[in-house]
Amino acid sequence: MSTPPHSDLPPGSAIIGQSGGPTAVINQSLVGVIEGLRDGLHKSGTVKQVLGMRHGVRGLTKETGDGIIDLTDLPQDRLDRLAKTPSACLGSTRDKPDAAYCQRILEACKKHDIRYFFYIGGNDSSDTCRIVSEMAASTKFDLRCFHVPKTIDNDLVANDHCPGYPSAARFVAMAFMADALDNFSLPGIKINVVMGRHAGFLTAAAALARRESASTDGPHLIYLPEVPFDMGRFAGEVESVYSKLGRCHIAVSEGITNSAGQEIGATLIQSGQRDAHGNVQLSGSGALGDSLAEFLKKKLMPAGGKAPRVRADTFGYIQRCWPYSSAVDATEARQVGRHAAGLAMKGERAASVTIERVSGRDHAYAARFNHVPLATVAGKTRKLPAEFMSGTSNVSQAFLDYCQPLVGELPHVERL
Amino acid sequence: MSTPPHSDLPPGSAIIGQSGGPTAVINQSLVGVIEGLRDGLHKSGTVKQVLGMRHGVRGLTKETGDGIIDLTDLPQDRLDRLAKTPSACLGSTRDKPDAAYCQRILEACKKHDIRYFFYIGGNDSSDTCRIVSEMAASTKFDLRCFHVPKTIDNDLVANDHCPGYPSAARFVAMAFMADALDNFSLPGIKINVVMGRHAGFLTAAAALARRESASTDGPHLIYLPEVPFDMGRFAGEVESVYSKLGRCHIAVSEGITNSAGQEIGATLIQSGQRDAHGNVQLSGSGALGDSLAEFLKKKLMPAGGKAPRVRADTFGYIQRCWPYSSAVDATEARQVGRHAAGLAMKGERAASVTIERVSGRDHAYAARFNHVPLATVAGKTRKLPAEFMSGTSNVSQAFLDYCQPLVGELPHVERL
Repeated sequence: MSTPPHSDLPPGSAIIGQSGGPTAVINQSLVGVIEGLRDGLHKSGTVKQVLGMRHGVRGLTKETGDGIIDLTDLPQDRLDRLAKTPSACLGSTRDKPDAAYCQRILEACKKHDIRYFFYIGGNDSSDTCRIVSEMAASTKFDLRCFHVPKTIDNDLVANDHCPGYPSAARFVAMAFMADALDNFSLPGIKINVVMGRHAGFLTAAAALARRESASTDGPHLIYLPEVPFDMGRFAGEVESVYSKLGRCHIAVSEGITNSAGQEIGATLIQSGQRDAHGNVQLSGSGALGDSLAEFLKKKLMPAGGKAPRVRADTFGYIQRCWPYSSAVDATEARQVGRHAAGLAMKGERAASVTIERVSGRDHAYAARFNHVPLATVAGKTRKLPAEFMSGTSNVSQAFLDYCQPLVGELPHVERL
Repeated sequence: MSTPPHSDLPPGSAIIGQSGGPTAVINQSLVGVIEGLRDGLHKSGTVKQVLGMRHGVRGLTKETGDGIIDLTDLPQDRLDRLAKTPSACLGSTRDKPDAAYCQRILEACKKHDIRYFFYIGGNDSSDTCRIVSEMAASTKFDLRCFHVPKTIDNDLVANDHCPGYPSAARFVAMAFMADALDNFSLPGIKINVVMGRHAGFLTAAAALARRESASTDGPHLIYLPEVPFDMGRFAGEVESVYSKLGRCHIAVSEGITNSAGQEIGATLIQSGQRDAHGNVQLSGSGALGDSLAEFLKKKLMPAGGKAPRVRADTFGYIQRCWPYSSAVDATEARQVGRHAAGLAMKGERAASVTIERVSGRDHAYAARFNHVPLATVAGKTRKLPAEFMSGTSNVSQAFLDYCQPLVGELPHVERL
């Protein structure tokens, strides 16, 4: 922040948008960008005003102009409260702009004298940044474009992890911890469906709920989108745990696919609404969990006997915006925003901010912020790496070591 | 605790069981009973040992005897950690004993020299207490039977509220607060299904999530089991909010029924598993929410247009055992346990402990503990009173005034 602004900066307004699924800490990043622009705003005068897009690029491109709000003079106490408020306070959007849409974005930037464009979002948002940046360059309009990472799916390449993921992972770990105790108390087979369409990072976080080993503690089985899901093997693995313990606690990613690459969940949704990205709706429905539960009830029914007690819960949207965030996540999400603004004020023209993990003292967790070209991140999906998986239905110790410092301490539970 | 034990107390063992759906604070009550028996155990010697039932009366009546564990010598630090652990650490049961089963309970008490029987649970558990107590009396076996209240449904008569409810209500209020912000961020119609089969107290708690008025803040509509649910009226009310705000945030009790008294959810579950109480499974399934969402998508589809974005989440079991309890709830759940043990040590023969609300200084919230005959509570269901409801789809200010002190402060959220 104390570096003097670069001398070649174009004077003009900065605008910030939030895109895609909200997170518990996406407003931290918004506030971070605002804070990072202060020197440019108040000292050098390079930044004329700080604007916000209402519902992302949808607001920016609104003809009426009421999709843009002025964030320049927000007092610090309000910023601090905004930062702690979950979900996107500017409003978000699922719009995935094509070339014509990006052209309208560029026109809106010209019209409103915007020279600094910050977009907080996932890989689609970094792609929007990239297209707009390239279009601006080709028309010789000096627009600086920065992508600020955000996704509970944790699926951005070039990042150790993404802001939003640690808080969602904390929620998932806590929910599994609580639900495993419930499952011990009233035994049966319990399936919990976790968000994360293409990458299993969030579902994998369920493993942090185990207090002892996976052989006794739930979740006993973890099904990730990276491992082809086979219904027969699933039934066999569940039966094996259930016959030993009298209960079985299962984490299932909403994005599990069969060996043909078809999403198990998508084939089960009745109306199959698709979003602007062509994705079939997986969240906001209990269909996958319910269908797996019905399958197990029938499959594990003993001859002439009673079906086991099988229940399914789908954690749903509260995973991504639960008000109590991970402390590491809250801090880092603020910092990536500041870092993006800092890059802009130092003269960078376009970048995607990244988080790198570094070894702290005594191997304690520490992170630093860096950046890569937009094209490095744009539109790509990072999967759970092989070393984080174990067998067909578990995660490795390496994953636990990776995830635990992000999530922070979990409540201590005691047993009889 | 300091009252000397009653002189006519039969010497023998005490046993404690947990029954029905777990809660975040049911272990507080267990620890409260253990603490309340200490004088009887260590000073007067009336209480020979303190035992626990593994999975309630199912453990007590196990022929092998391994369904009973010794809790006599648990150190205080372990008790304190157990108290803070959600879900029933002894294990719970859904068994609803009939006369023959109660006879076996009584035989087990005689066999294990049990003279003090504590059962932590809802109205079915109080009924088990009542039957066992009456059977013991009729056979001249001096067995003292105490029901310690517990239910997230808050549906016990003679109580201002029940331990377990404030923590579950806190979870529901927080979840609605977070999800309303999510719904503002990515607008659409969102249904959240909340536990509570017969009484709407838990669903009603969603209203605490509103920061301003119900006309802008979610949840905009609240559907309780006490108000007959009409699909046509539902669609009309949703459309009215949605056409005004472009979004609609809805709380639905899992127990909503039509005017003929049929549970809407029960008619939608595929396999219709029933528990020992003859209840169709409503929890652990997303069927009700999904069906209502499908209904709205079709009903609100404009001619030739695109169906609105409709999503449904079903909060599921984490409502009842989320690790962060309400502070009031944690304290009171411990106290009802101690109070039950205190009644036993003062010579009461049978009772159900109750919570009464009293006006504290400056009208601040305060509660006191009392007791009523088991038959007063046994098997009865308290509904949300009329003065807590408003119209067909909202709660009253009187309900908010009732519920807020139980739930405690919620996180402050800020808006642009």
